[in-house]
Amino acid sequence: MTTLIKNAEIIPMTKRDLFFRGNIVIEDGIIKEVGRTETDADETIDADGMIALPAFVNAHTHLAMVLMRNYKDTCENLQDWLSEIFPIEDKLDDEDIYQASRLGCAELIESGCTVFADMYFHAWNTVRAAKEAGIRGIIGQTFMNDAADAEFRIREIAPRILEAIGTSDMFRLDAAVHAVYTATPDCYMRAAEWVKERGAMLNTHLSETRKEVEDCIRDYGRRPAELLESIGAFDVPAYAAHCVHLSDSEADILRAHGVSVVHNPASNMKLASGTAPVKKYREKGLNVALGTDGASSNNNLSMIKEMNTAALLASVSEMSPSAARPYDILAMATINGAKALGMDKRIGTLEPGKEADITLINTQSVNMTPVNDPFSAVVFSADRKNVDTVFARGRKVLEHGCLLTMDKDEIIRKTKERWESILRR
Amino acid sequence: MTTLIKNAEIIPMTKRDLFFRGNIVIEDGIIKEVGRTETDADETIDADGMIALPAFVNAHTHLAMVLMRNYKDTCENLQDWLSEIFPIEDKLDDEDIYQASRLGCAELIESGCTVFADMYFHAWNTVRAAKEAGIRGIIGQTFMNDAADAEFRIREIAPRILEAIGTSDMFRLDAAVHAVYTATPDCYMRAAEWVKERGAMLNTHLSETRKEVEDCIRDYGRRPAELLESIGAFDVPAYAAHCVHLSDSEADILRAHGVSVVHNPASNMKLASGTAPVKKYREKGLNVALGTDGASSNNNLSMIKEMNTAALLASVSEMSPSAARPYDILAMATINGAKALGMDKRIGTLEPGKEADITLINTQSVNMTPVNDPFSAVVFSADRKNVDTVFARGRKVLEHGCLLTMDKDEIIRKTKERWESILRR
Repeated sequence: MTTLIKNAEIIPMTKRDLFFRGNIVIEDGIIKEVGRTETDADETIDADGMIALPAFVNAHTHLAMVLMRNYKDTCENLQDWLSEIFPIEDKLDDEDIYQASRLGCAELIESGCTVFADMYFHAWNTVRAAKEAGIRGIIGQTFMNDAADAEFRIREIAPRILEAIGTSDMFRLDAAVHAVYTATPDCYMRAAEWVKERGAMLNTHLSETRKEVEDCIRDYGRRPAELLESIGAFDVPAYAAHCVHLSDSEADILRAHGVSVVHNPASNMKLASGTAPVKKYREKGLNVALGTDGASSNNNLSMIKEMNTAALLASVSEMSPSAARPYDILAMATINGAKALGMDKRIGTLEPGKEADITLINTQSVNMTPVNDPFSAVVFSADRKNVDTVFARGRKVLEHGCLLTMDKDEIIRKTKERWESILRR
Repeated sequence: MTTLIKNAEIIPMTKRDLFFRGNIVIEDGIIKEVGRTETDADETIDADGMIALPAFVNAHTHLAMVLMRNYKDTCENLQDWLSEIFPIEDKLDDEDIYQASRLGCAELIESGCTVFADMYFHAWNTVRAAKEAGIRGIIGQTFMNDAADAEFRIREIAPRILEAIGTSDMFRLDAAVHAVYTATPDCYMRAAEWVKERGAMLNTHLSETRKEVEDCIRDYGRRPAELLESIGAFDVPAYAAHCVHLSDSEADILRAHGVSVVHNPASNMKLASGTAPVKKYREKGLNVALGTDGASSNNNLSMIKEMNTAALLASVSEMSPSAARPYDILAMATINGAKALGMDKRIGTLEPGKEADITLINTQSVNMTPVNDPFSAVVFSADRKNVDTVFARGRKVLEHGCLLTMDKDEIIRKTKERWESILRR
């Protein structure tokens, strides 16, 4: 199967500020050429007026939390909100997670994203949903509580997720340890050991709120990243979401261990957690990726909206419009996300040999006329209505803004039914 | 002509947090009933799954600046950027402004907005465009420089705008005095006098950057709002955009004179102007409206995106998620905007007797499932793709996301042609 995308304005994300008009040839899911070549193809897409760029990488989410979208939005802080959410989560069953994950996958695709790093429960259902949707999932085996609980999850739950993944290389099972305030050091240590055995990565929430930091110092005499380093949690490949309140030395710890930061600006703003000093992290040489967090604290899963928020927040928080240039923001949403998840050899840029995860943005729209600067246009002008076509490993999953792999109306109906039944339980 | 919108989830914005399922009857452009009535109508819209709310009021923009969208986005501050933009503006002719204004109107409609307060040049062309589009314009006769220049504009330019408006009550001609750093006190005084004669309002940029404040103190020995009060500019009804760096006593001045603040969060963030302390203004009893500013400093005209940005910024800047609740943000985008522009007797809420400016948001979409809280859903989950139908004074201008009064492709083509010709001049 060969696909030719021709006459696109290509942002390959291989070199700073590079863009050019050209064609992309995809063969059996792999990018064969990016340039001038025209070739006979099974399918030819005339992308005149479209910007082609690597599909977005949502490096931190809780996909099935779309169920709690806009729910209990009146809480004053993260801790109060979690106390509303946890009892709901205790009621969730396989079918809830499956239907909600389908809806989440649909939302990701509609906003140009083909891979997500997830942290949630009953994750075999999320794998099943993402397989149907045709996108990739870096699935987190969630860990909370202590080492005994970790042992139980490794023995009883992880095999179910691995079975759902099967031989597909569109998925990987990571360890998603919730946070230092919900998991003990020995839980982290057991998860890290499990990750090491399996050649996977460790995902965690880190330094999201001031309270987390204060409580950690009170309980362990160290700040969260210091604690995790001291117990060896960063001796395995890792990525950490939020990182709002890292001290300079904690940022240095992450840098030294190659731990990527996943920035979640909308969630951090909405829940008043604070502003992650992304400019400082980037200047220190940390890899900074981007994620939406769950739809219950955002309240959407749109990476295209998240880029806009990240760009605006960077400028105002640093009082400098060059704190993060549109190219930098796009890098966070593509190649840096791929790096954070250890997938940068496979996706994150448009170049020969990479797998074809590609998003086409339609600039033939009033809100993107004139384009002037394609990087600014995507980051500052575009929205979900401009996301025209999405390929996940060469397979077209969105066309002219419509889902191809899923029945949108059915997903919406079933998700609503599940949520209503959860509220009655 | 009677229109019945039935089975909508109605947010009338008449009372805090009020919403209910019901019908809206429109007769000859006026809202006749909001409630349970079903009536025979010339047109019936089944709005099941839609949220009906007052169409958004964009209380500060420079519509024709869509031409400079994403242009010179690399400037470090507002002053540097203006020095790039002003030479371009000197080249603009009637046809440029007309085509750009058409595109701007299309973008407003697509994002659910039916009235804009504009500040720009050759504004008769903007009137012509908005008439075609079928929406309302509070058009600013721009004033800069000194009183002699103001006199010239009143004599030579304003009549052309008034002629374009003719007898239409969808428009009003206000005085838009650029700012204290571009207009002299006697220019402001002449503009205020002109406003008073005509029963119109005064629109101005106020306290956008720290530099503006510092320069004003250096040049006049007072802060900008103090200066404008001292010369009587606030003795006429007025609204002021940005208001990022008002002192407490300046906020009190605005309150005492009933001057509304128009908040422009995206522009202020993007240009690193700062964060307007909206919570404080609201607590002081000021009326705070919302605007996108021009597309060249945003870089879009979407009020639905602006609400999201305003909500996120309020929470993080005050470190409190209750700094501005979704209802408060919606009020800023609707009734407060109408109040700011002196139009709250005519639009801004859905209630009998008001003119029918109504937006329908389609919640039957993956990013708005489930709704849970309709206020949060509109502010945090929705985007332009969810804007289904828009009425401007009872006339349908958008249906299922498609423009009814304008040819989108033609507008895009002509705007591009104009911009390319401007760059060659």
